[in-house]
Amino acid sequence: MNAAESDPVTLGWMVGAPPPADKIIRFEENGDYFTFPKLRWTVCHMRELMPTVGVGRGLGPLRFFDKGIDSGIDAVTFTPLGSDKTMSFAEAFDANYTDGIVVLHKGVLVYERYAGCLNDTGHHAAMSVTKSLTGLLGEMLVAEGTLDDKAKVATLVPELADSAFGDATVRQVLDMTTGLHYSEDYADPNADVWIYSAAGSPLPKHADYKGPRSYFDYLKTVKKEGEHGAAFGYKTINSDALGWIIARVTGKSVAKLLSERIWARMGAEMDAYYSVDSIGTPFAGGGFNAGLRDLARIGQLMLNGGTLNGERLVPEAAIAHIRAGGDKQAFAKAGYTLLPGWSYTGMWWISHNANGAFMARGVHGQAIYVDPAAQMVIARFASNPVASNSANDPTSLPAYEAVAKYLMGK
Amino acid sequence: MNAAESDPVTLGWMVGAPPPADKIIRFEENGDYFTFPKLRWTVCHMRELMPTVGVGRGLGPLRFFDKGIDSGIDAVTFTPLGSDKTMSFAEAFDANYTDGIVVLHKGVLVYERYAGCLNDTGHHAAMSVTKSLTGLLGEMLVAEGTLDDKAKVATLVPELADSAFGDATVRQVLDMTTGLHYSEDYADPNADVWIYSAAGSPLPKHADYKGPRSYFDYLKTVKKEGEHGAAFGYKTINSDALGWIIARVTGKSVAKLLSERIWARMGAEMDAYYSVDSIGTPFAGGGFNAGLRDLARIGQLMLNGGTLNGERLVPEAAIAHIRAGGDKQAFAKAGYTLLPGWSYTGMWWISHNANGAFMARGVHGQAIYVDPAAQMVIARFASNPVASNSANDPTSLPAYEAVAKYLMGK
Repeated sequence: MNAAESDPVTLGWMVGAPPPADKIIRFEENGDYFTFPKLRWTVCHMRELMPTVGVGRGLGPLRFFDKGIDSGIDAVTFTPLGSDKTMSFAEAFDANYTDGIVVLHKGVLVYERYAGCLNDTGHHAAMSVTKSLTGLLGEMLVAEGTLDDKAKVATLVPELADSAFGDATVRQVLDMTTGLHYSEDYADPNADVWIYSAAGSPLPKHADYKGPRSYFDYLKTVKKEGEHGAAFGYKTINSDALGWIIARVTGKSVAKLLSERIWARMGAEMDAYYSVDSIGTPFAGGGFNAGLRDLARIGQLMLNGGTLNGERLVPEAAIAHIRAGGDKQAFAKAGYTLLPGWSYTGMWWISHNANGAFMARGVHGQAIYVDPAAQMVIARFASNPVASNSANDPTSLPAYEAVAKYLMGK
Repeated sequence: MNAAESDPVTLGWMVGAPPPADKIIRFEENGDYFTFPKLRWTVCHMRELMPTVGVGRGLGPLRFFDKGIDSGIDAVTFTPLGSDKTMSFAEAFDANYTDGIVVLHKGVLVYERYAGCLNDTGHHAAMSVTKSLTGLLGEMLVAEGTLDDKAKVATLVPELADSAFGDATVRQVLDMTTGLHYSEDYADPNADVWIYSAAGSPLPKHADYKGPRSYFDYLKTVKKEGEHGAAFGYKTINSDALGWIIARVTGKSVAKLLSERIWARMGAEMDAYYSVDSIGTPFAGGGFNAGLRDLARIGQLMLNGGTLNGERLVPEAAIAHIRAGGDKQAFAKAGYTLLPGWSYTGMWWISHNANGAFMARGVHGQAIYVDPAAQMVIARFASNPVASNSANDPTSLPAYEAVAKYLMGK
């Protein structure tokens, strides 16, 4: 099913009082609420399915981007990775199942388009873009001296002493170079990710369930595999371990800290939220939901080196560290063929391209793309049927580079 | 346990990463999350326990009340119903387990106090105050001619034809003079309210559960008892039946309609939200949560006859109908000894006192109190251990009247 055929509005999910039986999407253990094409509705309605905690925007004024729509962007062409036919930016929108995309140039909103379940007052699941927010909070605390990135995790969270995280440093967690016995292969029904998912599910357990009942409980059980620091290994549990570290050193959940330090100070247009587990812990590895323009504000904050609207929200050193990138050799060992020469640090993806672009990335196509040379930020929400970003990168990474080039030539 | 002893902050519910095992509050079927003293935490954290749908404030500017705190209000004294000792307004705050209270006089914020789980950026469960919002939407549609209050419910929602609601009029539903076989005695474990509660629970059902799976499914099963129009019978299911009627005639859920027509147009400080059942239906009988000052805005809207900030949001006729009150004789048959001479219409409680005061009321002490003569609005959130308002009225109704008298004498 292409984008038009799988459009959630066209398919009529959850429309009617009540919706027809075959159009109802329910939240159930092992349910199909997050399978395509239902996921194209679900990504905009997470809070209607599960418990969540708000990330308040506070009571300050809303600050909108100056708007200067550039009608030339739709016609910008690029060659998708692995293809020999060009595609326009406008065509890419549906090709990779975009639900919404905005482009900022020098802080001005130059492009904005929505489809499917999303509009400018809606929320959308950010999936693993969440990790980059957790990482940003972590790097902020490191830069401020609240968190020592050379400290062993066990010294900060003693409950993790006997787990694989115990003798890893905070830096190894931030850069995901921990050696963890943990499979995140969604196609394997026996993969650890499913045990993790059950642990983090807010739903009550059957009486005979003996597994972990929270994200934290699961993290304590993770065994070591290989050595820490040797290679990049993209594993969600690092982000939740970091969320735990942050909560322990600040006394605040990532939701509360993100609100206090950033969301309530950036003129956000709307509150954001995280899904939570059965003890109220925000899912720091993938549970964040927000409006698209607010997501773009995070990109602008990164582009500006930690300031927004003239106010410093994040230490410059924290952003500088992320921009400089991580260990390219460690990254190369992970075998991302579509991301040659990239690195990962602070839970951000660094392209090391000529423009110094770096990204937050989430499955099914979520992205914040920051291009310092072009002074460009792209924020994108999507519901690509394929979870892996290998399905989004061919029609998005070169598109972003082409728009950057176009904007730089203006 | 008095208010200080049961303070949720003092008791430390859900504090820590993770909270100690005996301080965790989980959402489970037949769980104790809504029993005292845990409920004093839960009332501020409903969304962290269950799925919810937002009532968006839109992207307009926040409009704060002008502030002119009157330090004399705390010392206003009154005699609690059934007592011979006076009490001050300040003393009443803890006596009836108030979590937050604001007083508006001529639209100016003259009193504001929070405790326990609540502050001015928090949300609190409004409980049955929700019904008055549903009723307000219903009266609005009646006044606009979209909804005929003389129509039989079956003509609008054919699925209810074989239920007790089928041959009731919309007016009888709005005024809760329907004759329904339905017990809402929370102390009786076999009361219908528990079947209703199970139907509306968003949690997955055991394989052997054969009951209704949604609010709507339950409403279809309600049997008639007595005659419609004979007596006031305060039953939550009327509000959900009205929610269904509203959704059918407008094509929008009460959450969406409330947002579009009121919340996004009144300069709300924050989004609000409703809890939802397993098919996403907002709980129109009791699932609303909001900030306290925003709740007060609804009171001011009622006081103003349907306008706020100079803009008309609700037809004057809708408010006029509510203020005029319902059938006093029908109300008297329900036996509310603390509310002599009151009536009920449009899902609001009308005191018919000398000042023409009227109220929205919710269990555990939630209230919007509008006093037209005194040009006063009081909004209150509370977590009284006793569900029934018979535990709140003695120390709140005469307190409100005393403050009204005080403000009128200024």
